[in-house]
This record gives sequence, C-alpha cells and structure tokens, in this order.
Amino acid sequence: MARIALDAMGGDHAPQAPVAGALEALGELGSAHTVQLVGRREAIEQELGRLAVSEAHRARLEIIEAPDVIEMTDKPSAVRSKPNSSMMVGLKAQADGKSDAFVSAGNTGAQMAASMLLLRLHPGLKRPAIATIFPTAKKSVVVLDSGANVDCSADELVQFARLGAVYAEDILGREKPAVGLLSIGEEPEKGNVVTKEAHALLTEAGIRFLGNVEGRDLPAGTSQHGDLDVVVCDGFVGNVILKFYEAVAPLMIRLLVKEGMPETGIRKALRALDYSEHGGAPLLGVKGVSIICHGRSSPAAIKNAIKVAVQAVDSRMNDHIGRRLETVTPGGAA
Amino acid sequence: MARIALDAMGGDHAPQAPVAGALEALGELGSAHTVQLVGRREAIEQELGRLAVSEAHRARLEIIEAPDVIEMTDKPSAVRSKPNSSMMVGLKAQADGKSDAFVSAGNTGAQMAASMLLLRLHPGLKRPAIATIFPTAKKSVVVLDSGANVDCSADELVQFARLGAVYAEDILGREKPAVGLLSIGEEPEKGNVVTKEAHALLTEAGIRFLGNVEGRDLPAGTSQHGDLDVVVCDGFVGNVILKFYEAVAPLMIRLLVKEGMPETGIRKALRALDYSEHGGAPLLGVKGVSIICHGRSSPAAIKNAIKVAVQAVDSRMNDHIGRRLETVTPGGAA
Repeated sequence: MARIALDAMGGDHAPQAPVAGALEALGELGSAHTVQLVGRREAIEQELGRLAVSEAHRARLEIIEAPDVIEMTDKPSAVRSKPNSSMMVGLKAQADGKSDAFVSAGNTGAQMAASMLLLRLHPGLKRPAIATIFPTAKKSVVVLDSGANVDCSADELVQFARLGAVYAEDILGREKPAVGLLSIGEEPEKGNVVTKEAHALLTEAGIRFLGNVEGRDLPAGTSQHGDLDVVVCDGFVGNVILKFYEAVAPLMIRLLVKEGMPETGIRKALRALDYSEHGGAPLLGVKGVSIICHGRSSPAAIKNAIKVAVQAVDSRMNDHIGRRLETVTPGGAA
Repeated sequence: MARIALDAMGGDHAPQAPVAGALEALGELGSAHTVQLVGRREAIEQELGRLAVSEAHRARLEIIEAPDVIEMTDKPSAVRSKPNSSMMVGLKAQADGKSDAFVSAGNTGAQMAASMLLLRLHPGLKRPAIATIFPTAKKSVVVLDSGANVDCSADELVQFARLGAVYAEDILGREKPAVGLLSIGEEPEKGNVVTKEAHALLTEAGIRFLGNVEGRDLPAGTSQHGDLDVVVCDGFVGNVILKFYEAVAPLMIRLLVKEGMPETGIRKALRALDYSEHGGAPLLGVKGVSIICHGRSSPAAIKNAIKVAVQAVDSRMNDHIGRRLETVTPGGAA
C-alpha cells in the first residue's frame, strides 16, 4: 500500500495533465494504492468534475490543499518564500509520515531544494543525484547524474554508482546490476582527471563494475565487457547528453518525413525514445521518494511516474539505499 | 593549387579506401590540385593497377615512399619509434614545404602527436583541438573540441571559439560565425566552474558569442539566440557526445526496420547523419593542415576529407588562425 502525493500544480500542462495522469494510474494500480492531489482544491475539483471520475477511483483520491504554486521560472530559493506551495506541502506530508512518495512535473531546481530541505539526505551524501532512464538497443539503462551536480569529485561518482545500482535492482528488477563509467575510451587510463580517479575507486567499491564505457555504448546499451544497467557520469555531461538524446528523435523524424516516410509509422517505431512517455526520474540520495517529471509531461508520463513511485515504496528502495551507503567503510570511497 | 598528402596506409580499409578516395577526389577537384599517396610503393601501385587509373589522373598523383606504418593499436609515442611511417613522412613533407596538407584515417592519437611535433603549434596554444562537423536540422555546426583535450581551462575554451570561428568562415563559408558555449542551461550562471568562467571571457573575446547552448540545441542547430555555426566544449564532453551521435542513427534504423519500414529509404533519409560519409575533422591550432578521418572511412569520406584539405589550403585558413590568435592582446583571454 502506497500513498503517492502528486503535485497537481506542477508542469506546463497543470492541473490537466497531472489530474488525468492520476486517474490513469488509479486504473492500472492495485486498489490499495491511493493518490494525494496536492494543490488548489478548486482547480483540482474542477478537473475531476470535467473528467467524470468513477466512485471507486474517487475513494482512492485525496486532495491536500496548497494555496501557493512555485512557478517554472522561480528560483530554487522559492521553496523558502512559498512554504504553502504544492511542492512544499506535498513533500512535508511525506516528512510527516502522511504520504509515502512525491511526484512533480514542476520546477526541477525547486523540487531538489525542497526534497533536500524536507526529506534530508542520507548520511555521508553531499547532494542527491537525478537518475534518468535511457532507452537503448538492449535493455534500458539508468544514467546518473543527469543534472543535479555539475562539478563532481571521484567519490561522488562512486556514490552515484551505489545509488544507481539500488535503483536498477529495486525498480528495474536487475540482479547484480552492471555499472559503467562514462569516459572517452575503454582503457582505465582514458578520461579526465576525475574519471581516472573514479575508475580506480570503482574497481574496489564492491559493485559489479564493467569499467569505462564510451558515448557509443549508451544507445547500444552494451559495452565490450557486457550489457549495461547503470552508467555513471557527472551531472554536466549527463544533462548535456540527456537533452541531446531527447532532441535527436524529432530531428530524425523530420528527416524521414521529408523523404516521404509515413509519420505515424515512424512515431510508433520510435516511441521508446519519446521522453514525453517516460516515467520520471527519481532524485536519489534523499531519505524518501521524490520523482522528477519533465515539465511537458503528458498524462501517460505522469501515470508512469506514479507507478515508479509505487515501486520505489513497495520495494523499500530508500531503506536499501541507506543500507548500501552505511555498509561502506568509514573513510572509504563513499 | 594544393598538394594534398594522403596517408595511404591509414585506416581500417587501407590501402583500398584511401587510394580509391584519392581517385574520386581527383575526379571532382580542379586539375591544378594533386594528391601525394604516402606509404608502401608496392601496395599503392597494386591498388592503382587494380583501379585502372586514367593517364590524366595518374599525372596528378605522386607516390611518396614510406616503408613503415603506425598501427591503429600503437601508442602515440610510436611517432618517435617509427619516423619512416606514412604518417611521419607525410607530415614531414608539409613541414619541409613539399606538401600543403595531410589527410589520414589512421591512428588519431599518433596523428595529433606527429602534427604537433612536425608542424608545431601556433604561439600561445598549449594543445590543438579537433573540430567535428555535426549535422543538424538547420546548417551543420562545428563542434570543438571533440577529444584532443579532456581537462580544459576557460582560456582554452576561448581559444577553441577562435579556432572554430575561423574554420566556419574559411571552410563552411559562414560570415561572422555564431559561437555557442555548451552548458546545462541558457543563463550565464548555469554550468560548471569552467563554463561559467568561459562564458564571461567569451562575451569579451571579440567574437559573435550567442551565450550558452544546451544539449538539445545541438541537433536543432539553433538556440534561443539564433542559429549556430560553432559550439565550444571540452574534449571530454565533445567526444562523449560525438560518439553518442554516431551510434544513435544505427539504433533508430534498427527500431524502424523492426517496425517494417523500408531500410533503403531510411538510410537515404538519414544519410546526413552517417559519419562514414563525413569529410574528416581538422586538427586546429597546428601551423599547417592536418585532417583526421574516421578509422572506418569509406572512399567517399576520404574524398570529402581531401576536398576539405584543399579548401583549407586555398582559403589560407592556417594564416587566418595565426592572425586571429595574434590579435588577442597579450595577457588577454587567449
């Protein structure tokens, strides 16, 4: 049983997309799971009225009133000036034990700040990491960090490896997940100063480390040492490559349509690459569950994010992360 | 009139692909241009015999004997132990004024080392940069550095901007090229320590600086401030994203074919993204012309690289780079 708080006011298409996504999720999830819509009651009720919700679904919906909204253009510091925003209220409910997870398509920087403030970080961590799922030619791969940390130390990359491995186990169901370090050559001595140091630390970090992987291994989902479950990089590289990946499919579709190919068939074939369908990226490292969705998330994307949140709660991912970080010897890599 | 030295022994398909590419180039270039095939005379003559070269083309071909070959797996230090390799002999001809440009699909690290050793760097530069052409939805964009420099200072990023701007002017024919700085947000304060410093320096570098661009702006070829000609990044990020881009098209083709789309049509539509057709990446910053081709270059790719080399010679790109670097005030950004 999981109670998922959803930011009804977050994202480019709020409150329509979140509310519709919540209803889609209720249709697919077991009946013990509930969704808490956080935001302006009137706006939420209006959407629910428009969508003609069944009584069974209505019984699994709760509205948590939050009069304020953190806008997409607000600075992360807005979490201090807007304590009654849907984001702060939703995360506060989790901190107070009244909710199990939080999902938002709103302001990412603010969600990070609010999550760190209200849920707090696991001991030993300096910053959380955003874990994104990359579609590949093989299985999907967890890439982290995707933008929370721009200048990373080698120790932080090792922490990302631990966080990503737990995520791959608990959410993607991978056994002994294989972790690669993103670099510019397969040999340990290839890379920049930080990745070279991280390579050495990762070989002794007690995880299944496949060594360096290159940019080309990411869409392939595999390296010369085996198939990948997790790829670790700093948040600068991770963010650049995530946004690049998101933009490549539309370019290709345009080229194909120009050549006379049928657009519907193309979109169907490439839907695995469509980020608007993806289920949100968890902010790993906070003591709780906080799932970041793309600002332009569709109801289907919100639904998928809610399902990821449920999995995170059901699998006790957060406890596993805490234990994984604890087992590291003090003064060790992480 | 340009004399282009071509490494006949370099690349996965040598000497077949280089020799065939040389002949294709002669067919397309003005009759004043010549190609110098550098390598083992016997192997080259055998290829030429097989290809039934016309007398007119034969008159514009020279063979420069080089008994040794730097293998793809050799370390860059092989340039010292193999002074009679095709790479060293070809670049030596340029240093001695007997050739105007060098093109190779061989060992990239060795080509960089040999180019620095024999052609030397322009004053004020510490390292050369590899400039790669990225196909985009708009015009193609020069991305540098693509892998020559992994840990870059802000000053080096500014130098890349100058080098890339000259390349965009002289080879791509862009007037007042627009330069973007690859980062993780459009605002100047977004990025890592180095890009934030570089942003400040670039606004005063006397180039047309469009500010930060994000990963998604690269395939689009445009940012919110206008269309892009040059994108600057460190060689770690540049290399990761280049290899990623190269691998994405095959993934998409696989997905489309699986959905029943015709492979020929797809390949035709996406041929702009096929790096095996691309004309090589110049090593900018050396006092001369050295063009790096992909190891698996086809004859068409070699031909295109030779044409880029001719353009670099004809446009006096190297003099322009020297002048552009000289005009920087001593103690200034570059």
